[in-house]
Amino acid sequence: MTLKVYLSGEIHTDWRERITEGAQALDVSFNSPVTDHAASDDCGVAILGAEPNKFWHDRKGAQLNAIRTRKGIEDADVVVVRFGEKYKQWNAAFDAGYAAALGKSLIILHGAEHQHALKEVDAAALAVAETPEQVVQMLDYVLTGRLPG
Amino acid sequence: MTLKVYLSGEIHTDWRERITEGAQALDVSFNSPVTDHAASDDCGVAILGAEPNKFWHDRKGAQLNAIRTRKGIEDADVVVVRFGEKYKQWNAAFDAGYAAALGKSLIILHGAEHQHALKEVDAAALAVAETPEQVVQMLDYVLTGRLPG
Amino acid sequence: MTLKVYLSGEIHTDWRERITEGAQALDVSFNSPVTDHAASDDCGVAILGAEPNKFWHDRKGAQLNAIRTRKGIEDADVVVVRFGEKYKQWNAAFDAGYAAALGKSLIILHGAEHQHALKEVDAAALAVAETPEQVVQMLDYVLTGRLPG
Amino acid sequence: MTLKVYLSGEIHTDWRERITEGAQALDVSFNSPVTDHAASDDCGVAILGAEPNKFWHDRKGAQLNAIRTRKGIEDADVVVVRFGEKYKQWNAAFDAGYAAALGKSLIILHGAEHQHALKEVDAAALAVAETPEQVVQMLDYVLTGRLPG
Amino acid sequence: MTLKVYLSGEIHTDWRERITEGAQALDVSFNSPVTDHAASDDCGVAILGAEPNKFWHDRKGAQLNAIRTRKGIEDADVVVVRFGEKYKQWNAAFDAGYAAALGKSLIILHGAEHQHALKEVDAAALAVAETPEQVVQMLDYVLTGRLPG
Amino acid sequence: MTLKVYLSGEIHTDWRERITEGAQALDVSFNSPVTDHAASDDCGVAILGAEPNKFWHDRKGAQLNAIRTRKGIEDADVVVVRFGEKYKQWNAAFDAGYAAALGKSLIILHGAEHQHALKEVDAAALAVAETPEQVVQMLDYVLTGRLPG
Amino acid sequence: MTLKVYLSGEIHTDWRERITEGAQALDVSFNSPVTDHAASDDCGVAILGAEPNKFWHDRKGAQLNAIRTRKGIEDADVVVVRFGEKYKQWNAAFDAGYAAALGKSLIILHGAEHQHALKEVDAAALAVAETPEQVVQMLDYVLTGRLPG
Amino acid sequence: MTLKVYLSGEIHTDWRERITEGAQALDVSFNSPVTDHAASDDCGVAILGAEPNKFWHDRKGAQLNAIRTRKGIEDADVVVVRFGEKYKQWNAAFDAGYAAALGKSLIILHGAEHQHALKEVDAAALAVAETPEQVVQMLDYVLTGRLPG
Repeated sequence: MTLKVYLSGEIHTDWRERITEGAQALDVSFNSPVTDHAASDDCGVAILGAEPNKFWHDRKGAQLNAIRTRKGIEDADVVVVRFGEKYKQWNAAFDAGYAAALGKSLIILHGAEHQHALKEVDAAALAVAETPEQVVQMLDYVLTGRLPG
Repeated sequence: MTLKVYLSGEIHTDWRERITEGAQALDVSFNSPVTDHAASDDCGVAILGAEPNKFWHDRKGAQLNAIRTRKGIEDADVVVVRFGEKYKQWNAAFDAGYAAALGKSLIILHGAEHQHALKEVDAAALAVAETPEQVVQMLDYVLTGRLPG
Repeated sequence: MTLKVYLSGEIHTDWRERITEGAQALDVSFNSPVTDHAASDDCGVAILGAEPNKFWHDRKGAQLNAIRTRKGIEDADVVVVRFGEKYKQWNAAFDAGYAAALGKSLIILHGAEHQHALKEVDAAALAVAETPEQVVQMLDYVLTGRLPG
Repeated sequence: MTLKVYLSGEIHTDWRERITEGAQALDVSFNSPVTDHAASDDCGVAILGAEPNKFWHDRKGAQLNAIRTRKGIEDADVVVVRFGEKYKQWNAAFDAGYAAALGKSLIILHGAEHQHALKEVDAAALAVAETPEQVVQMLDYVLTGRLPG
Repeated sequence: MTLKVYLSGEIHTDWRERITEGAQALDVSFNSPVTDHAASDDCGVAILGAEPNKFWHDRKGAQLNAIRTRKGIEDADVVVVRFGEKYKQWNAAFDAGYAAALGKSLIILHGAEHQHALKEVDAAALAVAETPEQVVQMLDYVLTGRLPG
Repeated sequence: MTLKVYLSGEIHTDWRERITEGAQALDVSFNSPVTDHAASDDCGVAILGAEPNKFWHDRKGAQLNAIRTRKGIEDADVVVVRFGEKYKQWNAAFDAGYAAALGKSLIILHGAEHQHALKEVDAAALAVAETPEQVVQMLDYVLTGRLPG
Repeated sequence: MTLKVYLSGEIHTDWRERITEGAQALDVSFNSPVTDHAASDDCGVAILGAEPNKFWHDRKGAQLNAIRTRKGIEDADVVVVRFGEKYKQWNAAFDAGYAAALGKSLIILHGAEHQHALKEVDAAALAVAETPEQVVQMLDYVLTGRLPG
Repeated sequence: MTLKVYLSGEIHTDWRERITEGAQALDVSFNSPVTDHAASDDCGVAILGAEPNKFWHDRKGAQLNAIRTRKGIEDADVVVVRFGEKYKQWNAAFDAGYAAALGKSLIILHGAEHQHALKEVDAAALAVAETPEQVVQMLDYVLTGRLPG
């Protein structure tokens, strides 16, 4: 059994690396969005031409990124969504809702301070974790039945 | 043609009333979440018993609210999601993602200040409006072909 | 909003009556299996001819009952499954799994003594209740936003 | 043709080994839940933190196990569900219902004493067997057309 | 609960009338193909223009009839397929396969002499009856829980 | 049986009126896009604000019209698509492809001069007609079994 | 592009061999039912125990064969169904209907004498052929664009 | 991540070669229709026998080509549809509609002169490009996060 895992959400800390490195002995294939913030913001106009209006500048980029995001989520068995300290992160919550409607197994990763604000998102998840290491331990258990410690 | 419209998101201003009143001559049926903030937060423990841990207190409520929310979205032709001035509003973005994955026609309603933060959500929508009156005008046009003015 | 509710499971106590009577002022339409135990067991052979082998006797009945059960579950918004004191009740757990796979909102109703044995079933539910009155209160809240007391 | 087979249900006898060993010359890939009873019960709290209330202790574990179980069933061509001598085994019946709703080919494995209690589950199956060896013979026939003896 | 029933297959005896008359006190809505043999054969060319080649004459008619047949089957809760004494009746078996793949509850109606030839079709059904009266009794039981006699 | 029919395509002749009037004695409910060419082109900017770039002007309108079009097609049993004498009419062919992928019964309506250019579209249809009166005759036959003349 | 092709229907002539041999240079993977008539009839009772009643004898076999048949059809891109000279062949027509409802590309293979009786089945197909060699030529064309001669 | 891309539409210029060559270092697998115009027009009658009526000549060919086209679109992650200078190209718009209804990521490729006529098609797309090189750049970005220049 290979587990396909999509890592959605926050792009300013090293949580993806901690999961992919922690899980490198496991039969998991990872996917994620483009995590280069500038490239992700400007990809649309860089390829398809400039837009004077920021709204359409953003639209072109967001739709191009959606090609990757949708495939990542639709192909996944498990979607991990991380909410960080800063920004609105509405795209993370949008991905969680998208994955939930497709019946994907959802793991939500966030600090205790967001517990109340994320209650509807957490309620759709099969697990709510605080650290990337817990995600690795869960992937390990799901694939091998092994528990930490 | 009756249009079934679900009104998701922000619960602290009168935007739902402005839409339902503005559209009362149209063949539209509206649904929405429970908009009483306190009831929505505490419904789970009020019916199913208290929880000392706030996380499970929230879980019980969020899952009970999900019975209404999912039916509302799944039955809808059009899902309108409003983002307001305050709070994280991750449940609104979650609903938008959920609706998008089900192929619902999405209308996003927000002020100009949220344009960049909502770019992925807006990119999944068929329309992005700033005022409830624009939503009414769109419902009117979709149902009757009539334009304002 | 009319809520379509299917009442599955235990047929030896009055829990269905307590729910349907308690909810009679609400916009709910209820469905349930045939609850006459003898008719339910023998319906197949009574109509389609006797079977000397009890296995096929049971098969004929169970498949005829499945016409009603599947329609009931597939048409429902909410599936309530009650586990009682006695018997194996594997058909109740089967219905719960069937409803879960179809994405129905599940409410499980059982006494505290079955908590551990039902943990996988409960984990697929949006609510776990102990009394029929709690189910009525949840239907009331989902439809009207009203809380008890 | 590779047949993907999920082996659900009873975890206290060697029926899984008898099937996987019996079928080792066939083009079958097997999956199953975690069958270490203690790990399966405690996996949630072992990774995600202790819960004083047994209900939530069980919930955390059951939801984590669901990541593996759902993938196993959704990926399968054939779901074999074994009911043993002891316990309520509602999770086995739940898996059978879940698999049935997804249109999987179901094989139910149980002793004659459970025939009446399992009639609704059996009625959704394409085969009802009493021994693991019969399951092996069926997989052999389905893949090669070969009959025993 | 209204049951939507589609009556497919043989068009040379009065079995449909016996069912619809027998069930007239029940909450059932019936649909069926056009049962006027000549109209059914020639409808395509009568409306869309003659075809010198019988193959395309038949094609035009069969595709026009398919508009009605597909809607009838797709809208149905229960599909009853009757096999009679004469002709190949491949369209009846085709309808049964079509309904089975859509997960409809299938009832097959035929005389004992076709038992072996129809074994694959019967095996996909929830009931196999010999007389229209048995079909009426099953509809009655499914809707009301009432058994004959 | 009520037949829901969506009338897509060409908006410069009276073909829709000829069908709806011809079918007024039948149990058919019709839907169609907004057929006021100017309103359809400008609806987006009229409600949501002007766009200096014609591409985004068109985008806003086309997406608003899509709310109506998608609902019309998704709700329909039968989608009739008319190709006229003039213009590219790519939206008509797009609607035909959209309806085909959803498994709708397609009727294509066009003059003989477009036969070769429309061969892929026609090949996905259950009927190809040249006049609105033929469409009326087909709806009449599908609903009542009656043939013209 | 690998094309997955299921070969359903008549089992008394060498048409499957003529197709698989003719297509051996092509990127096609073939599947088919068990074509040993005796094994196919008796597989159920040979493995799961004798039945005195021929109806249940047939049922056991037909349901066991369905495990293979359904997987074959569900995995296929193209389903070829051959109707021969003899027998009722209702299982072939059932497979065609099943495949049609799943949206598979259907090719029907039969002699001219069955043209009228198969008109509804042919009308659901993308091609109707008379010889296995035509099927090979079509697979060749679909995969490579090459035409015969 | 391998991206499966279907290249639909115009067959008279070298746009497919420019994309497949430009993307040859990327993890993309391409599919496309048969692009030999004469073979595509005559394949049906070349294999299945001549038709005196051009309508059925075209039908036979179009349905045979549909076996390839549907598989190509259904297997794809991304469907690129190119509209050229000449012809009606209704099959291209049909493919775009078909792909949109299946939820595929759509990229539309056309010159500025078709902007208004393609507005409904463009509005269903995640990107609208003018050159094959832009398509290559987008595939590169989606797979690697790399931007041109």
